[in-house]
Amino acid sequence: MEAMENYRLFLSLLLLALSLGFVSVVFVLRWVLHFREGLGWDGGAAEFNWHPLLIIIGFIFLQGIAIVVYRLPWTWKCSKLMMKFIHAGLNVLAFILAAISLVAVFDFHNTQNIPNMYSLHSWVGLTAVILYSLQIVLGIAIYLLPVSPVPLRAAFMPLHVYSGLFIFTSVIAAALMGITEKLIFGLKDPKYKDSPPEATFVNVLGLLISVFGGLILWIATRPSWKRPNEQLLRSQLNSEPTPSGISANTAMPERTDAETDTVPKGNTLYTLYILYIYNI
Amino acid sequence: MEAMENYRLFLSLLLLALSLGFVSVVFVLRWVLHFREGLGWDGGAAEFNWHPLLIIIGFIFLQGIAIVVYRLPWTWKCSKLMMKFIHAGLNVLAFILAAISLVAVFDFHNTQNIPNMYSLHSWVGLTAVILYSLQIVLGIAIYLLPVSPVPLRAAFMPLHVYSGLFIFTSVIAAALMGITEKLIFGLKDPKYKDSPPEATFVNVLGLLISVFGGLILWIATRPSWKRPNEQLLRSQLNSEPTPSGISANTAMPERTDAETDTVPKGNTLYTLYILYIYNI
Repeated sequence: MEAMENYRLFLSLLLLALSLGFVSVVFVLRWVLHFREGLGWDGGAAEFNWHPLLIIIGFIFLQGIAIVVYRLPWTWKCSKLMMKFIHAGLNVLAFILAAISLVAVFDFHNTQNIPNMYSLHSWVGLTAVILYSLQIVLGIAIYLLPVSPVPLRAAFMPLHVYSGLFIFTSVIAAALMGITEKLIFGLKDPKYKDSPPEATFVNVLGLLISVFGGLILWIATRPSWKRPNEQLLRSQLNSEPTPSGISANTAMPERTDAETDTVPKGNTLYTLYILYIYNI
Repeated sequence: MEAMENYRLFLSLLLLALSLGFVSVVFVLRWVLHFREGLGWDGGAAEFNWHPLLIIIGFIFLQGIAIVVYRLPWTWKCSKLMMKFIHAGLNVLAFILAAISLVAVFDFHNTQNIPNMYSLHSWVGLTAVILYSLQIVLGIAIYLLPVSPVPLRAAFMPLHVYSGLFIFTSVIAAALMGITEKLIFGLKDPKYKDSPPEATFVNVLGLLISVFGGLILWIATRPSWKRPNEQLLRSQLNSEPTPSGISANTAMPERTDAETDTVPKGNTLYTLYILYIYNI
């Protein structure tokens, strides 16, 4: 029963996070289409508007989903390798959208003769993009290429997890600074301090992405919501298909690390087993 | 040997975090004293300047220390209760400084006829202060008052830890927005976008507190750097003084949860033991 409650809590928070992420995308769309100049690629304000839109869709929403994708219980019957490809794919997609959004803002600045890279927003944001590209390259080299040794995979995992969450948090902090900048520079009469509807609306957008970030961090850091190693291993070793439905017993299984001694050493299966034990 | 290396890494990162926190305080002092109007309590800019100063000293530096205070190995021979008082005391002190810094900025706004609470910075910042006061009240009620039942203490711990780190991160995000606002509003000729020395200097301050925050989060979330339960319990039960020096063996002991069955049930010591097992 407790496993079922745990599963329901997970589902509720996941649905809440996805809803907040989706509503954030709707909010940024309404911001640029209704309150501002719409979208275009002309070196003007409509080109700038791709910047907040693509950051929130890619760098915040997609990256958030990529972070928790291993936590979805209905994917635990899929191979770890496939989940790694989905995790990497979502992050690469998020990176591409973030890169396009940077092109938009640099192009806008250059056309309008506004200096680049003077603000704390730009320093934190560009650092996050550079760290993100490093994280993706290292992640693929260590966890997707078959050449990297198992001890390296295990040793690097805490750093991979931490830096993923740190970059995600930094992106949200940079977005909050970006919102602050845009509301100050964009609102002239009435000004930001006069609280016109756009100011309140975009402040709410800032709160939405903050709570979305908080939920993703909560989901990602609950030990009992991690993808289990042992169950997966057993289904891999026995080549038995796991039940397709999520029952109360399989939803959130207890860790049974003590049982793992039964796996035979000295063969390919053992290597596979070590890989899965380290959850890498 | 591995324990010693682990201890050295902990010490290096702790020293780096403390140095960054200290340098951040020096930076904000130089910002308000050298680049801006100094400190005063006259409803003008010198009164506003208490706001960034007290936020960085209290809400960032002291709160950061309060978060990692249980991790200091040389405190593991002290009673858990004393460490709780230090943890709570540092947080209460940080809250008082944050409250004074809010009075400064509200007083400044009212004197200058600037509206209050219109910006995303103020929304996130005030939410963090309110959540922080709630966190402190709940923390004292659950972990310091002797009336709260053990299951409640255990059940609430993950939420206490998570919300502590979430509030700390939100404070840093709010500070980055505050820096952005102040550099835009405060720099007129040259403007923020012209990158005068003050702009670059305060951008660096923003990076310093971000890295400080990242280090505190890393230190706080390493499982092997947590205050051990078992060693403490043993010294409590036997009333034997632990060695005052930190040796390679005692610095970062392994968890030995399996040994805990030897403690006799049904007496006060057992209750004490349960309390320490749950690390609460």
